[in-house]
Amino acid sequence: MTVKNLSDLFEHTLQDVFFAENFIHKNLPTMIEKSSNPSLKKLFKDHLAETEGQIERLKKVFEAIGKKPEGEECPAIEGIVKEAEELIDEIKDAETLDAALIAAAQAVEHYEITRYGTLLTWAKLLGHDEAISLLRDNIEEEKSADSKLTRLAEDKLNKKAA
Amino acid sequence: MTVKNLSDLFEHTLQDVFFAENFIHKNLPTMIEKSSNPSLKKLFKDHLAETEGQIERLKKVFEAIGKKPEGEECPAIEGIVKEAEELIDEIKDAETLDAALIAAAQAVEHYEITRYGTLLTWAKLLGHDEAISLLRDNIEEEKSADSKLTRLAEDKLNKKAA
Repeated sequence: MTVKNLSDLFEHTLQDVFFAENFIHKNLPTMIEKSSNPSLKKLFKDHLAETEGQIERLKKVFEAIGKKPEGEECPAIEGIVKEAEELIDEIKDAETLDAALIAAAQAVEHYEITRYGTLLTWAKLLGHDEAISLLRDNIEEEKSADSKLTRLAEDKLNKKAA
Repeated sequence: MTVKNLSDLFEHTLQDVFFAENFIHKNLPTMIEKSSNPSLKKLFKDHLAETEGQIERLKKVFEAIGKKPEGEECPAIEGIVKEAEELIDEIKDAETLDAALIAAAQAVEHYEITRYGTLLTWAKLLGHDEAISLLRDNIEEEKSADSKLTRLAEDKLNKKAA
């Protein structure tokens, strides 16, 4: 699609994040498999289910603006995942691997948080009222997943302090 | 480098963000040139100077852990920038272009925020005391840049409400 105005930009970015969520949905099972810490494994499993809900909400946003749900290739998320894969493949130690998986997942969360933040601002400017609450739900879930990952990463720190 | 433990992972991620900051430093002049809104142009110019300070702090972090400052290719930041370039090249309308530039810059800020957050947690775990305040300074600057970009993106919204 050619981007001429903010309305096109909104649609383009929606397609971008739709591709990203579907891409992550495909990659999460590998992260579940590679993780060792039971809390981390559970967090990834929960997030897989959450991602399905987020994809459904995105479909409703497409519907609200009268467009068909379509993904637009997203080099950003591909780069983030490629970088994670390269690193994860070479780590043998389980605890180090968990730390790398948490870092990779947080990079993904932050990418999604920034895209949803942008879409939310534009939805307000464009008067896409129905989209606003759907996007807000997705951004809140991503922020919560990010906070849980931070707590897990700091777990050993808390144990050390205790 | 082969990543065997958390110490290697810290160094690897430090090299990753060092590459990313240098990459952004090279790309910011194009963003300054392409932007139209004077406040946005100024923000990008200020951030160019800030990025130079952040690169200097990263060099000090390398020094603190007894390593030479080196960049490791970072497909994530390359993907984020590639995606921005593809989009920005096709937008002719100045206001739409500014909106796309803000969104691209926020994706970059969020990538850096997540990497600095990860490095900060690991610095605490590894007892890299000197690195902690340096990383904290960088993360605070990135968060502040991100907030300023959000305010700029919402500017028209505030004008509409007024």
